Amino acid sequence: MRIARFSIDGNVAFGVVEGDAQTEGGPVLDIIKGHPFAEFERSGKRIPLDKVRLLPPVLPNKVVAVGRNYAEHAAELGNEVPDAPVVFFKPSTSVVGPGDAVVYPSFSSEVHHEAELAVVIGRMCREVPRERVKDVVLGYTCANDITARDVQRREEQWARAKGFDTSCPLGPWIETELDPGDLGIMCTVNGEQRQLGRTAEMVRSVEDLIVHITEAMTLLPGDVVLTGTPAGVGPLNVGDEVAVTIEGIGTLTNKVIKRG
Amino acid sequence: MRIARFSIDGNVAFGVVEGDAQTEGGPVLDIIKGHPFAEFERSGKRIPLDKVRLLPPVLPNKVVAVGRNYAEHAAELGNEVPDAPVVFFKPSTSVVGPGDAVVYPSFSSEVHHEAELAVVIGRMCREVPRERVKDVVLGYTCANDITARDVQRREEQWARAKGFDTSCPLGPWIETELDPGDLGIMCTVNGEQRQLGRTAEMVRSVEDLIVHITEAMTLLPGDVVLTGTPAGVGPLNVGDEVAVTIEGIGTLTNKVIKRG
Repeated sequence: MRIARFSIDGNVAFGVVEGDAQTEGGPVLDIIKGHPFAEFERSGKRIPLDKVRLLPPVLPNKVVAVGRNYAEHAAELGNEVPDAPVVFFKPSTSVVGPGDAVVYPSFSSEVHHEAELAVVIGRMCREVPRERVKDVVLGYTCANDITARDVQRREEQWARAKGFDTSCPLGPWIETELDPGDLGIMCTVNGEQRQLGRTAEMVRSVEDLIVHITEAMTLLPGDVVLTGTPAGVGPLNVGDEVAVTIEGIGTLTNKVIKRG
Repeated sequence: MRIARFSIDGNVAFGVVEGDAQTEGGPVLDIIKGHPFAEFERSGKRIPLDKVRLLPPVLPNKVVAVGRNYAEHAAELGNEVPDAPVVFFKPSTSVVGPGDAVVYPSFSSEVHHEAELAVVIGRMCREVPRERVKDVVLGYTCANDITARDVQRREEQWARAKGFDTSCPLGPWIETELDPGDLGIMCTVNGEQRQLGRTAEMVRSVEDLIVHITEAMTLLPGDVVLTGTPAGVGPLNVGDEVAVTIEGIGTLTNKVIKRG
């Protein structure tokens, strides 16, 4: 099931995506009564997908991310695969949705794309045993862990380099029925392929990461875990259109704009 | 003015603290109608302070903290004062209030206290010019940037070392009329003095830090900025009572307990 969050005429709601581009009349959203973080009912009220504005599929309280989780990517930046996952935060103020602008930050001149599989947490949890991880995951979406690479090199902690406003596009929706073990993941810039990998190349699996993170901290419904990026990261420039595609989920597209 | 957040009989509210320990009958809380992040009215309904449970004075969306902002503290851990502030996040799930327990984390055997002046943000802001910083600050409170020092040494990014549950005690209240430029700041453990400094020793001032942070990211009402800790950090053990006192604000006391 695909769950999207959207606005129409100023109202915000969640909906289940039915059909796709091949469906007659195009895909529609069946509006959810309430929110998807518990048992929910569909209203049966349907809106064509192209009539709404898609929003970030969740408003996370926090995004917990990991660095260097694909060996080839660690190597391309001259890093070793670390003994323990490198865990950092992206704040809620960095999150934008599909189609939203990524605003080039004033304090960087080297902004990179990083295509990542995002895990959406469905229930409050801590100290999750490996075999219970599936119970705390609502589903998966695409993320772009936009990074000011020059600032990341300069500043020991990555709060500014990876936490600036608009540095965390998420979307287009949450896919709830998906095995994250071996999915194709791709990033294109202006239609040209830049990153290509498979989630099977992750050094630590989704299960490993959630066990490791929740050993320290509580995750809340709607929190997001980013799982690292495959090789091929590179610069984004003002005017670029960057797209992250993950097999079985869809494509998250954002345009890079100049700070107005 | 001192603004506290509290619960009584299951209800949560903000109140203005009137009087102190010397006042006949003791201090009282004048309940605020609504919240203190805009012009507000006092209800005139007063409750003795010792009849309520104080809560964290704000529920921050994010806590933005800086490391090594007192030269003597940087030196005691063998670090240089960095060229730029070392900026990191503590998540909302790490926040507890005055009197709440600090739960010793399972993945550390060296947990340290770090007494810090906390800045409470009063309005949504970004790219704040130095001369406008005072307009975005609601007031100041005490914080303890509890740190798993062994994990901090081991893991390159500090999300787990400084972001675990209960690692961010805040309180006891927000003091809105205070010049943060030169305040005494002290930490005691079981009544014994461990840290003693003055905010005048900060490498970067409150203004410097808010300009630097908001160059990258939006701060929201209730967000908190931690300003670094003076020299004297050291271990906490299960059973310890740790207290942070800041001149003109008051004392934040927490007890360290074993994970149950």
